[in-house]
Amino acid sequence: MQVKVMLEENEMPRQWYNLAADLKTPGLPPLGPDGNPISPDMLAPVFPMNLIEQEVSQERWIDIPEEVLQLLYRWRPSPLYRAHALEKALGTPARIYYKYEGVSPAGSHKPNTAIPQAWYNKQFGIKKLTTETGAGQWGSALAFAGALIGLEVKVYMVRISFDQKPFRKMMMQTWGATCIPSPSPYTQAGRDILARMPDTPGSLGIAISEAIEEAVSDPTGQTRYALGSVLNHVMLHQTIIGLETKKQLAKINEKKVDVIIGCAGGGSNFAGLAFPFVNDKINGANIDIIPVEPSSCPTMTKAPFVYDFGDTAKMTPLMPMHSLGHGYIPPPIHAGGLRYHGIAPLVSHAINEGLLNPLAIQQLECYEAAVKFARTEGIIVAPETSHAVAATIREALKAKEEGKEKVILFNLSGHGLMDLVGYEKFFAGELQNYEMPLEVIQESLKELDGYPKPPAMTNA
Amino acid sequence: MQVKVMLEENEMPRQWYNLAADLKTPGLPPLGPDGNPISPDMLAPVFPMNLIEQEVSQERWIDIPEEVLQLLYRWRPSPLYRAHALEKALGTPARIYYKYEGVSPAGSHKPNTAIPQAWYNKQFGIKKLTTETGAGQWGSALAFAGALIGLEVKVYMVRISFDQKPFRKMMMQTWGATCIPSPSPYTQAGRDILARMPDTPGSLGIAISEAIEEAVSDPTGQTRYALGSVLNHVMLHQTIIGLETKKQLAKINEKKVDVIIGCAGGGSNFAGLAFPFVNDKINGANIDIIPVEPSSCPTMTKAPFVYDFGDTAKMTPLMPMHSLGHGYIPPPIHAGGLRYHGIAPLVSHAINEGLLNPLAIQQLECYEAAVKFARTEGIIVAPETSHAVAATIREALKAKEEGKEKVILFNLSGHGLMDLVGYEKFFAGELQNYEMPLEVIQESLKELDGYPKPPAMTNA
Repeated sequence: MQVKVMLEENEMPRQWYNLAADLKTPGLPPLGPDGNPISPDMLAPVFPMNLIEQEVSQERWIDIPEEVLQLLYRWRPSPLYRAHALEKALGTPARIYYKYEGVSPAGSHKPNTAIPQAWYNKQFGIKKLTTETGAGQWGSALAFAGALIGLEVKVYMVRISFDQKPFRKMMMQTWGATCIPSPSPYTQAGRDILARMPDTPGSLGIAISEAIEEAVSDPTGQTRYALGSVLNHVMLHQTIIGLETKKQLAKINEKKVDVIIGCAGGGSNFAGLAFPFVNDKINGANIDIIPVEPSSCPTMTKAPFVYDFGDTAKMTPLMPMHSLGHGYIPPPIHAGGLRYHGIAPLVSHAINEGLLNPLAIQQLECYEAAVKFARTEGIIVAPETSHAVAATIREALKAKEEGKEKVILFNLSGHGLMDLVGYEKFFAGELQNYEMPLEVIQESLKELDGYPKPPAMTNA
Repeated sequence: MQVKVMLEENEMPRQWYNLAADLKTPGLPPLGPDGNPISPDMLAPVFPMNLIEQEVSQERWIDIPEEVLQLLYRWRPSPLYRAHALEKALGTPARIYYKYEGVSPAGSHKPNTAIPQAWYNKQFGIKKLTTETGAGQWGSALAFAGALIGLEVKVYMVRISFDQKPFRKMMMQTWGATCIPSPSPYTQAGRDILARMPDTPGSLGIAISEAIEEAVSDPTGQTRYALGSVLNHVMLHQTIIGLETKKQLAKINEKKVDVIIGCAGGGSNFAGLAFPFVNDKINGANIDIIPVEPSSCPTMTKAPFVYDFGDTAKMTPLMPMHSLGHGYIPPPIHAGGLRYHGIAPLVSHAINEGLLNPLAIQQLECYEAAVKFARTEGIIVAPETSHAVAATIREALKAKEEGKEKVILFNLSGHGLMDLVGYEKFFAGELQNYEMPLEVIQESLKELDGYPKPPAMTNA
């Protein structure tokens, strides 16, 4: 009874897969607030040119540099598990597989892109990276990459998380990164906010503004900014997850996957597993590909396709994506990584082309699923990942009802050992569901009045 | 440049190695307080007979049941890493390797014995296991094993840890175990203590008493007790670590290890890596084998070889071991897993036969080493493991001074993601060293006056 499928070092994928090359319609460019496209050159103060090239590339396959492969090999290829115990507990005829990304030293999939981003910056002569982080998953992954590659890393962490969730801050410090609460007195953006709202808990939007400001205002030109999701090159780097999975499934002669599931906040862990299979779907395969979001932040299931800013402070270009509006503040669910107002342009694009079937699930169902998973499969998943587990259980029970031997695959994007408080609150009955009324979303979207709109698209 | 060596499923060791078979002199039996040996039958209310047989076995090799192998395979074989980055940072000609046990879902080596212990109990018809835990590493490992194997698990957790270190308690609950603060009102031992000292912070000794009492007083006879270190069968189960390592070293043609290092509290992670190499040493190999302990709890470097109880409440048999006295209370260092008054009888025995070279290191040197390790190799180690890292750095620098290409191997017994507060205190300058004055130890050992003494032994 095979429970785990591994790959050898020499079986690691040598190239990343770029979905942009295979979509029917071309992607829309990011825009300035004036409605004019942002050219690659205009991004040069923020990102190194080698990453900007990846961001706009239309090549289907992009080589993974050998040194990056060696660094990824420290914890990759990650294991693919067959969930025999969960299947048995559900009494389902479905075969359930999960790819386990919690084996990285930072505990999630985030280092898959932190490592190449740090490496390309280093190649480009950059000495220091700035970034923002909410609960700290991305900040700690970039700190880890900075330690391995030899780059200074500075993380602006949303103040309320900095104060209330100190553990990932300690991880960053241990890896040698500087982590400071945002808003801070070290940037103009931070000082302006502090002058107006000295007691603000901070926000991702403010932290992004501070991180970008610090990057672009370094007089030596040796500082750049790094982002952990949403952008095309981040999706690209994560496709190693799905490419490995394909090889693992082939090893055990599992020829056809029927359902693919991943949780989606910015979209990168979902895209990482799913995009190589989206390619199969484009080529005719019958696969149900499901990105799962929390009902409290229904970007994919309730939000229109618009041009919106990536941050609340409107520092970023306008990006073509499904968005609840950059001012939308999701309820305080424990899956902090899924509390983002938009979803990656590439994921949005694939939704618009009818390639994905997004789903929203409530928090309580997700925790219930995660507890069942821990008590059968033995892994405590991150609150974000619990959304993928809940969707998987739904699909497995559907297969049971239909009496079908479906093959279901999901991405176990990270372990939950740093997020146990959510479980404790669940057991104590202190968590609740949130359904966002459409009016709240409509109100939030009014902020986009007067900004450019994307051309009407199918399913948009 | 090879950074990681893996093994395939079919390369997993099929047998555990029992050092007891190869020691020159026979081991001393555990004794009752009256000085009479404890027979296997007398242990039957506490442990299932199949584990008692392992505890007293003199067989060199003991088969690992196929089902246990399948469960261990969920995260094993664990990776063996070459520490290129640390070597480079130290400028040492030594080749440094580490076996990484933090890949288990509980984050340490503890599940290597929790799984077989739970399995043998289940085979024997047992329905429920009781145990004690301090900081919670062992309790969470047993909870994990109980979830996978289908046994009820009840953990008595030292009250002060239960209150101050809630995260491993939450892990246990998520895996379905019951975790209650000790002393509790549910046992006679607990009630007695609470009556005398209602505000006691608890102790491992009290928690052991409660766990054993609950096990032996189950009228159905379907409850047993499980211990996470010290005993012979625990050392046995952990040898899978060293046996895998030997195969991994052979794969990369590394023929001879010069120095082997592991941290030692009860002794099980050290024994797990080292015992298969102790066998080589007995057969003539020139290897320096170093168990490392904190200077604040110098069981191996300052304590005599005596008969002592395993717990402060004197519920256990008298065991032949190096001990600071069962009443010894170590200073509050962060490596909670190394704060034990004794060291496993088998490790004690190997010390007495001159096979090991124990070393004590202070807390601050250990944290400094752990930070260097995190910033070069990218893994944040547990505070216990930091002792092994510090000893490794000492040996690597010695090799540099001597200009020798030594091969150094250490056991990275667990990650530190649940123990980041220690790192934060280290950075804040709030930690200190502790040296235990000999007089304190001598005073503590007076508690053993009037109990049986072991016969005089070499090096004892």
